Amino acid sequence: MNRILAITGLVLASTGLSGCIAAAVPIAAAAGVVKTSQDSKARKRSKRQQTAPAPQPGQVYTTEDGQKVQVTNLTALPTPGEAAVAPVAAKPVPGSVPPEMQFLYGSGEASALSLQAYAALWTYVHGELRFRRDKSQITSVVMTRDSTLTSPKFGTCGKRPMAVVFDVDETVLLNLGFESDAARRGPGYDQGRWTRWEETGADKVEAVPGAAETIAALRSDGITVIFNTNRSASTAPFTIEALNRAGLGPVTLGDTLILRDDNAPSGKDERRWQIAERYCIVAMGGDQLGDFSDLFNAKDLSTPARRNTTSNTLIAPLWGHGWFILPNPVYGSGLKGGMDEVFPKDKQWADPAEEKK
Amino acid sequence: MNRILAITGLVLASTGLSGCIAAAVPIAAAAGVVKTSQDSKARKRSKRQQTAPAPQPGQVYTTEDGQKVQVTNLTALPTPGEAAVAPVAAKPVPGSVPPEMQFLYGSGEASALSLQAYAALWTYVHGELRFRRDKSQITSVVMTRDSTLTSPKFGTCGKRPMAVVFDVDETVLLNLGFESDAARRGPGYDQGRWTRWEETGADKVEAVPGAAETIAALRSDGITVIFNTNRSASTAPFTIEALNRAGLGPVTLGDTLILRDDNAPSGKDERRWQIAERYCIVAMGGDQLGDFSDLFNAKDLSTPARRNTTSNTLIAPLWGHGWFILPNPVYGSGLKGGMDEVFPKDKQWADPAEEKK
Repeated sequence: MNRILAITGLVLASTGLSGCIAAAVPIAAAAGVVKTSQDSKARKRSKRQQTAPAPQPGQVYTTEDGQKVQVTNLTALPTPGEAAVAPVAAKPVPGSVPPEMQFLYGSGEASALSLQAYAALWTYVHGELRFRRDKSQITSVVMTRDSTLTSPKFGTCGKRPMAVVFDVDETVLLNLGFESDAARRGPGYDQGRWTRWEETGADKVEAVPGAAETIAALRSDGITVIFNTNRSASTAPFTIEALNRAGLGPVTLGDTLILRDDNAPSGKDERRWQIAERYCIVAMGGDQLGDFSDLFNAKDLSTPARRNTTSNTLIAPLWGHGWFILPNPVYGSGLKGGMDEVFPKDKQWADPAEEKK
Repeated sequence: MNRILAITGLVLASTGLSGCIAAAVPIAAAAGVVKTSQDSKARKRSKRQQTAPAPQPGQVYTTEDGQKVQVTNLTALPTPGEAAVAPVAAKPVPGSVPPEMQFLYGSGEASALSLQAYAALWTYVHGELRFRRDKSQITSVVMTRDSTLTSPKFGTCGKRPMAVVFDVDETVLLNLGFESDAARRGPGYDQGRWTRWEETGADKVEAVPGAAETIAALRSDGITVIFNTNRSASTAPFTIEALNRAGLGPVTLGDTLILRDDNAPSGKDERRWQIAERYCIVAMGGDQLGDFSDLFNAKDLSTPARRNTTSNTLIAPLWGHGWFILPNPVYGSGLKGGMDEVFPKDKQWADPAEEKK
């Protein structure tokens, strides 16, 4: 019941108008920065493994029946005394399209998820907020500096103009070119490659389904659309071109396009709070929890606890009512966890027929 | 503009009440049948590879610096004369948790997507439909028999009582036990194992985040909740137990729980139309496009065309307004397509630095 009260408090009264407009176009983009730490770990691991005389990834052998096979993957074994089963990340095979990319970039299911998210955002902003008589009582959806995940706090907006803040990669923009290259190459993230992608890939992107129409509709309603992204400030002209080509512009650098300065933190809270000083942020869209609050990326938050905060706290009622999430199983800070973290121990199962053997 | 008119036609007038209740709990389930053909291919391939004296998956070696490494994955090389890059399905490593499972079962992002979908469903049904004065003018969201994807048709409901139809697996129920077993074993789907899962796993499931609260709220509003699933009619008591344990019951077999009879087709249209003869289906929830219409699974529909039908047709405005989709990148009919089907040719990119080498 707490949850119900919380959302009522945030949404307050609504008007007699219900917005029933849905839009349609496809996008989703890749937040390169989020990948860095995970993938640099993967790189380190594979370097250590490339020491003779053990087989090496890529090495070719001939089997007894004459077939050639190639070692594609090695894992370091736990040293004696460690747990017997060490979870190892699945490794994509170069040249194939891994299932998470098939889903995000190729399936109608992911397209539908995106359209649904943008339809919900439009209904919320257009139907529930735009026609309020006393706009000064509208609540910002940015958590205040003294918030915690179990005690989120929000302020009212006063006279600031309404804005919606979006992440860019895989939120409004699908990085089709970069991910096609990643699928062809197989595992391994390279920051230099991502930078070259920002610089040369502006025509190899598409809008996430629903993003371009919803953003155009928000602007025509007089609501400012702001992009808060970890794309680099040093490649600004190319990011602006990519947004324009995908039908997501126009943007103004420093006002409606906020990039990450070199050496600035990847966390977005500071930039969000700066935007919130100038605008009333009535909705946010992103594909990562960090697009809503840096608190989700606290180092001491375990995988199950991180998941739990989205559903079993006062955060829960925000999804679809101010906070709008887009699908992205391809990369990001949600792709973590070994067996016991992803599957609660009391929910694990083993096939009884196999157990008997 | 056609899209906007279409949705307005479907939704019609709405009331002055806006439902602002969100709910929270976690689920998602596995449609075994879809997996079969893909995975049996993978099994065949890996058998061929397990021939000495080449390294074998699982074999342990010691590197020069004394570290122990294990061969976890091998791939068969193309025979000379074959295309240089033959797309090969990505191979999960037994004992690890593949990224798509980390996302669906372990991430806060997927939990948020589910909560958002259920919040949208609740807002739609409770806010826009329940308080209509003339309920006979409410439109069913089940496409009529003479529909096509480019020309979807819907009828009005007359005096039939309102109902919401849900798929079960990975829509209202997360098959944590089955998927934990699948992650431990690595690739390979086994119909017998899925049947044993239906029979013995009723306590190893959870509700999808948002499902249990939304379903309870719908029922307390006087709206009938019906499950239309491909789980087998022969294991009915176990499926009922699983639904009850996850907090999704009660159900009545044959009325609010529709299972698949042995030898019946996996398509759900016939069962949907039978339900629609008794109820006014005002909303549907599913994780697969086949949970909304079998037309999406037509054999002549290419991967890009299938994706396109969800966003660039009169289907688009249904997402979030009558049709509600839940995330599932782990299995299903959306996980298809090679490089050129997932990534449009004119959007593919290659790192210019690598090209120069």
